[in-house]
Amino acid sequence: MTHPIIFDTDPGVDDAQAIAIALAHPEIELLGMTTTYGNVDVSTATHNALLLAQLADKSIPVAQGAAAPLVKPRHPAPAHIHGANGLGDIELPSLQGQAESRSAAQFIVDTVNARPGEVSLVAVGPLGNLAAALQLDPMLVDKVKQVVVMGGSIREGGNVTPVAEANIFNDPHAAARVLTAGWPLVMVGLDVTHRCVLSPSHMARIEAGQGKLGKVLAGSYAFYRDFYQEMLGIDGCCPHDSCALAWLVRPELFTTHRGHLNVATEGEAEGQTIFAPENRGYIEPRWSQTPLADVCLGVDGAAVVEWITETLA
Amino acid sequence: MTHPIIFDTDPGVDDAQAIAIALAHPEIELLGMTTTYGNVDVSTATHNALLLAQLADKSIPVAQGAAAPLVKPRHPAPAHIHGANGLGDIELPSLQGQAESRSAAQFIVDTVNARPGEVSLVAVGPLGNLAAALQLDPMLVDKVKQVVVMGGSIREGGNVTPVAEANIFNDPHAAARVLTAGWPLVMVGLDVTHRCVLSPSHMARIEAGQGKLGKVLAGSYAFYRDFYQEMLGIDGCCPHDSCALAWLVRPELFTTHRGHLNVATEGEAEGQTIFAPENRGYIEPRWSQTPLADVCLGVDGAAVVEWITETLA
Repeated sequence: MTHPIIFDTDPGVDDAQAIAIALAHPEIELLGMTTTYGNVDVSTATHNALLLAQLADKSIPVAQGAAAPLVKPRHPAPAHIHGANGLGDIELPSLQGQAESRSAAQFIVDTVNARPGEVSLVAVGPLGNLAAALQLDPMLVDKVKQVVVMGGSIREGGNVTPVAEANIFNDPHAAARVLTAGWPLVMVGLDVTHRCVLSPSHMARIEAGQGKLGKVLAGSYAFYRDFYQEMLGIDGCCPHDSCALAWLVRPELFTTHRGHLNVATEGEAEGQTIFAPENRGYIEPRWSQTPLADVCLGVDGAAVVEWITETLA
Repeated sequence: MTHPIIFDTDPGVDDAQAIAIALAHPEIELLGMTTTYGNVDVSTATHNALLLAQLADKSIPVAQGAAAPLVKPRHPAPAHIHGANGLGDIELPSLQGQAESRSAAQFIVDTVNARPGEVSLVAVGPLGNLAAALQLDPMLVDKVKQVVVMGGSIREGGNVTPVAEANIFNDPHAAARVLTAGWPLVMVGLDVTHRCVLSPSHMARIEAGQGKLGKVLAGSYAFYRDFYQEMLGIDGCCPHDSCALAWLVRPELFTTHRGHLNVATEGEAEGQTIFAPENRGYIEPRWSQTPLADVCLGVDGAAVVEWITETLA
């Protein structure tokens, strides 16, 4: 089975690896990439998406999108995690191609409408482009095949606040719109991505298998790895964004629970994803009124890392 | 070593068991009980606190306190969990004694000031009385020995909302005041109380050991157990409030982490306790600006249940 997808991304080191998977895996048909600010500015995100496809000798449409959140002021890009250039500040080859003239949101609307019921949206950055696409065409909820979101955290705690994961924190209002839209949606958050640790030896296999692209993946990984060693004391990186594609192709490696998602948009818990399991009663019905979604709470982390590595090695 | 304590309580089935422990354990000196609305109305809470001491043939001062939250409207008492009378709707003996004329907050202030540095406050209901005591005497923070709070949840999820525990949800503003006051404080929340399950056979031993009081503890437990079976599908009850006393006397059974607590007072996450571990950096310093506190995140649940049972058997 082949999955036609649009990959919504802010590359970013772990995004770059996921893009390489989307370009390489025989069961993924990458219809295009849409870009957003997040790990980097949106122009850098667009540059990197185009460059990564070029390094893989593929021609993939790239449409630029959100440069800032819907409502809140923008937080500076985390240059200490992904580097100022989003790829670990390594020297990069020069770029040949250029982006679509259409916006990311318009690209999503056009592409989904051209193949109704077939296209999966895989979103691994702040969710402004998906929110904007819903504003252009609210009926998208019935026309996408599914939406796979890398973001959020239920039990694991956050990575940018004690309770919020970065993609959701970066635009909680867009996240609230997207996570409660009522389309078939699965959330792949820190509850599972933190169980997946890609070690330097895995990365050596990936570097060897990916030619020119492998040099960029491995060089940027080395920078990202320093951050993980310093912050979390682990030798290796969590391949957050690749986990969304692992779910797409190998969902049996994950345990999902069905229930209602809400997003805290203000206050101390800003950017937190709140999960009310289906059929569990609470003191008020308010947490159980959003459409049902699936949330990954368990994973065979070693198997996901092996799947990533084999795909690219 | 003996621990002089004030027990702040809203009995309540699990409160009743904890009161029995406070009355029975040789290392606990119960200086008085202060009552609050929560599991029941405050007048019912006062009645039950007096009656439970009477059934143990003990004369303990009881001072009545908060009848409602500081800021938000009051939620109805959960009669389906604790019974309308707070003790599983069993028939109760008639009460002889009466409460102090002083308010709960004044009783706390007077008692702590009479023995500075010696008294522990053990609070197992909504935290309005402790907040009111701080308003009467802000220097209490330097005069209590410690504050032990049964309430909150960090990783476990909530019991009245997907993220909020009942005591904190019932008065999040009071909880924010108390949990960030800067006194020596330990939070004993659902992360540990949900690991402790007191089975019917434990309760049979407690009933046999507690005479007239044992009849009330066992009768109310049977009602409370129905709720656990229906809601959580477990045969037994979580002795939430007794866990606070277990921590006081046997802290080595718990794993604590040090860090900063915050409470979400509004919005979707209302009543959630948010924990920022000491020395862990986040995207902004705002979550790490409150005074340090200790939070229980791990427990030997079987050993706690055995300690409870042995204390009362």
